[in-house]
Amino acid sequence: MDKMTQRFNGPPGQEDMPYLLTPGPLTTSRTVKAAMLADWGSRDIGFRSIVADIRNGLLGLAGCDDTYECVIMQGSGTFAIEAALGAFCPKADAKTLVVANGAYGDRAASILTRLGRPVVKIDKGDSAAPSAEEVAATLDADPAISHVWVIHCETTSGIVNPIEEIARVVKTRGKIYMVDAMSSFGAVPLNMAVGMDVMVSSSNKCIEGVPGFSYVLVKRHMLLGSRGMSHSVVLDLYEQWKGLEANGQFRFTPPTHALAAFHQAMREHAEEGGVAARGARYQRNARILIQGMRDMGFSTLLSDNEAGPIIQTFLTPRDPNFDFEQFYEDLRTRGFAIYPGKLTRRPSFRIGTIGKVDETVMHAVLKAIQEVLTEMGVTDLRPLEG
Amino acid sequence: MDKMTQRFNGPPGQEDMPYLLTPGPLTTSRTVKAAMLADWGSRDIGFRSIVADIRNGLLGLAGCDDTYECVIMQGSGTFAIEAALGAFCPKADAKTLVVANGAYGDRAASILTRLGRPVVKIDKGDSAAPSAEEVAATLDADPAISHVWVIHCETTSGIVNPIEEIARVVKTRGKIYMVDAMSSFGAVPLNMAVGMDVMVSSSNKCIEGVPGFSYVLVKRHMLLGSRGMSHSVVLDLYEQWKGLEANGQFRFTPPTHALAAFHQAMREHAEEGGVAARGARYQRNARILIQGMRDMGFSTLLSDNEAGPIIQTFLTPRDPNFDFEQFYEDLRTRGFAIYPGKLTRRPSFRIGTIGKVDETVMHAVLKAIQEVLTEMGVTDLRPLEG
Repeated sequence: MDKMTQRFNGPPGQEDMPYLLTPGPLTTSRTVKAAMLADWGSRDIGFRSIVADIRNGLLGLAGCDDTYECVIMQGSGTFAIEAALGAFCPKADAKTLVVANGAYGDRAASILTRLGRPVVKIDKGDSAAPSAEEVAATLDADPAISHVWVIHCETTSGIVNPIEEIARVVKTRGKIYMVDAMSSFGAVPLNMAVGMDVMVSSSNKCIEGVPGFSYVLVKRHMLLGSRGMSHSVVLDLYEQWKGLEANGQFRFTPPTHALAAFHQAMREHAEEGGVAARGARYQRNARILIQGMRDMGFSTLLSDNEAGPIIQTFLTPRDPNFDFEQFYEDLRTRGFAIYPGKLTRRPSFRIGTIGKVDETVMHAVLKAIQEVLTEMGVTDLRPLEG
Repeated sequence: MDKMTQRFNGPPGQEDMPYLLTPGPLTTSRTVKAAMLADWGSRDIGFRSIVADIRNGLLGLAGCDDTYECVIMQGSGTFAIEAALGAFCPKADAKTLVVANGAYGDRAASILTRLGRPVVKIDKGDSAAPSAEEVAATLDADPAISHVWVIHCETTSGIVNPIEEIARVVKTRGKIYMVDAMSSFGAVPLNMAVGMDVMVSSSNKCIEGVPGFSYVLVKRHMLLGSRGMSHSVVLDLYEQWKGLEANGQFRFTPPTHALAAFHQAMREHAEEGGVAARGARYQRNARILIQGMRDMGFSTLLSDNEAGPIIQTFLTPRDPNFDFEQFYEDLRTRGFAIYPGKLTRRPSFRIGTIGKVDETVMHAVLKAIQEVLTEMGVTDLRPLEG
């Protein structure tokens, strides 16, 4: 194994931590984790410069000009999603359209409902991509829709949605366009300048930081206009931004170690070659995994032109000897934590192809899968249904 | 210097990180930080056992019997405060009394106002303790008050409020009693069994973990009764608890590294001798700091029987050569980050006495303060006012 993927996830005495082949938290580099060996004061000038670097770096990565702002929010990605929905989506007299094709679209719609914000949904099930045409038709049929929310990579199936095409039909109609790029940002190209008003993502995805915070990139005029809109004090993006702008400090204690780790992760992202190189490595991981699984006899839920490089969904084999719990545990024992449980309606399981892992790890997990199948006596890998 | 307090805050190449003499984030032990060198899967069985240990351990530390539950919440302490206020405080027909003597009491009242929950306040300014008698009188004068919120240690001044005495008058009257023990829990004794229904604290205070999450300890029947009460999806304590109970997993990605660090911090807390020993060390820190500062000529804001062991407030000297910004920077250069800025109405500054620091560090910061005063030419340390 090369240096990058040497087996050294855990601390001394725990070097045998498994590779995390999930949509996050991910396996991160040793150096990213080592950046957490310092206790930064949250008001310290050095720490404030870390935060400023991160905010500027994220705006750069997303292709933002100086009409955009970056607001960091404590908590997981869903905290930023709720913060953004609460800040920008209308309370009455207008509606937000959620374009859903999986659990994360459904969740955004549920949050809007809890917040009492009018919401309509395009529901594509859990493995079909929405088209720009149907978004256009929905907007034309209901002029009360003022905001559109789309998921870039829906990790329910791993599908990558056509956010640029949808941007065109949304902006042509003068609507606000909001993108959840949680599991794609940093590896799948995304350029907010094509017409995205809002984008949210999190620390523990393709930038390969550790979990602890999320962030919202947004047009400054929208942020200014959101004053007083939030249903929450801690999730109030305008107030969070105002605090950061006033003195570079967070209103409430930030996850200092996770931010220091992310700062290092952004440096390593740039050193690897930015979005293009990171995406190419994940694409390679995905191709090797899919090919290897097909060679064994597995089928994928998605066709190759739909599947993104983030997470791959395989249909559960019909062989009665296949037991997913056992499969998961035996792979875990061999050093690979795949994603437990299924989200799609068709019986399936998922394996992530992101994080500090490369083709060596992909070949190793394929070998482990073959061993486990042999041990379980599984031979018929045709899907359970169909 | 002894082993515990050797100068080793930073990672290799950054060993000279300053001691954090603030109310948090704090200086933590090298071993607590080293626990973050592993990437745990959030659904991993080993990680779930870490989470279960933490939840049980916190209940034990707070003297809870099996009628209480522990819910962990992503984000800083204020996230748990808003979550608890949103879950338990009445929306109408009843009121919450906030007993305020500083910024954190004011903040709780502001959050209730933003949430549209009726609130009344006892305002003691920023350096006087509330008495049980005045809480009793307020409750007797307004029977619509159903809930009472008190801060244990108000870090605006460092004052420790009489939460057990207040518990008696609140529970005698059959009201719900909620305590913000953010900066005290783990070092100042707190026994929920005396009549506390709700308690909130955070990962980066006296247990000496890193920032990233907070927690709410609460009577189970209140948690069950709070279903549907929250104004938020991510801050919904009932749903968060239901997820943790169902399968030991978080609904939304938890800060895995901060939780692993906290698990180690709880072990070190027990090894040191629990709340009594932790509190005794902080008391020693506080006594040495206060005595040393008085020996130089400084005055404290609080009398000795009011000041807790968490953070000490000193009155700004009247000497025209004293410049706080310079004082802060010069101490920072010498390896001590004190708390920047003031919160009390009287000109003052604060120095924290918690975290992985002991009397050796206290003597060292006193020496540094003396040097900085000499360099600045400050001789008259009598307070600016009075």
